[in-house]
Amino acid sequence: MPVFVKGVGMLPVKDYWDKSVVDLATDAALLALDDANLKPKEIDMLLVSNMTCEFDNMQLNLATAILDALGIKNKPVARIESACSSGGVAIFTGFRMVKGGMRNVLVVGVEKLMDILTPENTAAMMLAEDYDWTFISGATFPSLNALALRYYMHRYNIPHEDIMMFPVIEHDHGYLNPLAQFRRKITLEMVKNSPMVADPIHILESSSLGDGAAALVLTSDETDVEISGAGLAIDYFKLYDREDPLVLLGVVKAAKKAYEMAHLTPKDIQIAEVHDAFSITGILGIEALGLAGKGEGAKLAKDEELRLNGRLPTNTFGGLKARGHPVGATGIYEVAEVALQLRGDAGNNQVDGVKIGIAENIGAVGSSATVFILTKKT
Amino acid sequence: MPVFVKGVGMLPVKDYWDKSVVDLATDAALLALDDANLKPKEIDMLLVSNMTCEFDNMQLNLATAILDALGIKNKPVARIESACSSGGVAIFTGFRMVKGGMRNVLVVGVEKLMDILTPENTAAMMLAEDYDWTFISGATFPSLNALALRYYMHRYNIPHEDIMMFPVIEHDHGYLNPLAQFRRKITLEMVKNSPMVADPIHILESSSLGDGAAALVLTSDETDVEISGAGLAIDYFKLYDREDPLVLLGVVKAAKKAYEMAHLTPKDIQIAEVHDAFSITGILGIEALGLAGKGEGAKLAKDEELRLNGRLPTNTFGGLKARGHPVGATGIYEVAEVALQLRGDAGNNQVDGVKIGIAENIGAVGSSATVFILTKKT
Repeated sequence: MPVFVKGVGMLPVKDYWDKSVVDLATDAALLALDDANLKPKEIDMLLVSNMTCEFDNMQLNLATAILDALGIKNKPVARIESACSSGGVAIFTGFRMVKGGMRNVLVVGVEKLMDILTPENTAAMMLAEDYDWTFISGATFPSLNALALRYYMHRYNIPHEDIMMFPVIEHDHGYLNPLAQFRRKITLEMVKNSPMVADPIHILESSSLGDGAAALVLTSDETDVEISGAGLAIDYFKLYDREDPLVLLGVVKAAKKAYEMAHLTPKDIQIAEVHDAFSITGILGIEALGLAGKGEGAKLAKDEELRLNGRLPTNTFGGLKARGHPVGATGIYEVAEVALQLRGDAGNNQVDGVKIGIAENIGAVGSSATVFILTKKT
Repeated sequence: MPVFVKGVGMLPVKDYWDKSVVDLATDAALLALDDANLKPKEIDMLLVSNMTCEFDNMQLNLATAILDALGIKNKPVARIESACSSGGVAIFTGFRMVKGGMRNVLVVGVEKLMDILTPENTAAMMLAEDYDWTFISGATFPSLNALALRYYMHRYNIPHEDIMMFPVIEHDHGYLNPLAQFRRKITLEMVKNSPMVADPIHILESSSLGDGAAALVLTSDETDVEISGAGLAIDYFKLYDREDPLVLLGVVKAAKKAYEMAHLTPKDIQIAEVHDAFSITGILGIEALGLAGKGEGAKLAKDEELRLNGRLPTNTFGGLKARGHPVGATGIYEVAEVALQLRGDAGNNQVDGVKIGIAENIGAVGSSATVFILTKKT
């Protein structure tokens, strides 16, 4: 049973002071249902992805709350949490539900981070890592990714500037995207001169906190956009267990499954959405997807091949850096954006003639990973 | 594709000071895999149910952590949260995964409540209710259920003593269960004289906090125990929206689906596991399942028909009151216990000749609900 995307809905990523986490999710869900021309009662299941609602929003039982807000009762629901890959894991679950016979599955991702303070959020995010052995050490995601960045530059002898081109390109994409959190251009000089978050990572190489929600209707009804490949895998939970910290093994394994299912190879991919919580993470994502060799991802940024008119347009709506990273919703934004590209509905951000795109979403420092390949049918 | 139970694993419910939330889940998972005679790598997916790991255990990304602890990487995982019905929702999701073509799905429920203080836990539990309109009012689950108890006694003119027999019977069952949190008998006088938690609910009518983990292997391989019916539905999220606070509408709808799928009616049910977070909640569960008329559930307790040798043996291992209520694991314990009864492996707690059992698991004051019917094949 092939699985298609029938509708997408996305809210602008920003601070929402006048909406609850349930409100945001419901708004995005209604946009996707409207796009799919479906009434709420026509869905067979609601899946909600969110990471930190317990800590950040003092709200659990989120899927129940959202289904109730949609005005329906008699449908199964589940909230799925898998750290920053919650969105991808919810899509994977919905994908399997459609494969298993459901007709329309509504997948909604939401995160409302701005209800609590930034240091608290930095701590909340770290709950994605092992509490007893990593969290407790005082490590943070900026510091862990800083180790990766330093090691990457050292091992492959890559100048930092090459990697810094990645957020510059993403901000150019975000500038064009009406839903982006940061609709302004930045320059290489600005990245270089921006404050250090965790040496050597500058703030303009880091995604920001933001609120957002995005939704997809997955369906067995044939549409123009098929999810032709889907993979979900994990890496060692503890970073220090890994053989090579510069290989996102979860992504490699998830990608292998997705490529096999889609009968495609990295060579076939025309656009990519990668999970650039930090620019280095995005570069490692490109490599783990097989879109560049080891140590060669940064060159794609340096050569500006990741631009909308480049060889491999990447994070075409701005990515986590410029579109924003509302954690549990991020994986949904990614797939929604690829779907819009394939439909030709990407507006200012449209890449011409896209037929095959890929989306990569990870949790923690890649301990969980999802990869989806979307294919245009006509 | 029929879905069967291939293996069950349960830990004793108690305080675990020497184990993490990941340890507990992994231990239960290994017991279930051993019971199913499977190696970890033979599963097709891991689903983890848990409610409060973010707040109580400072740990997210739980499913990734547990799969890694089982020594495997290349499988999909998801953590599912649906308040106190997390376990039931994870089983429902696993059930659909097997229906959709997966062969073996491992479902693990875990909760480790004792890491934080009781008042904090009372607050954490209330995150299952609407934050803006219910939590904020200062209501707690004891107080909300106290309203239901008082209204039930008033509307149906039921003496409180009738309902108090429910925990007395459950403690008799728990007394026999080596995994029960409370392995001691209590009397009606003890319930009457126990401290008031929220007038008119006494402490011996209330489930306790406790740590625990339970696991199931669901499979498409034929075994003696089939999950012949499965339902998941919700009620109005906000208690005050409901037409009748004494009808658990989510349970009614979920049960309707489960009965229809199993081609059975309430008359066919031989044993029941109901979600007695408080004794009144268990009584309302029995009624919502159609096993007693409105206002008639308490009579089954009063007449001691819920005993192992009664007309409708209920909560045969002690229920939430005596076996314990490790929140995200509770729904898994229930189905595991019904499976053991059908297999004839219930030990001291065995009810003779059981071929059909039902398990009801709810979140919050019934805003989410799952119902499973298990049938013995031979």
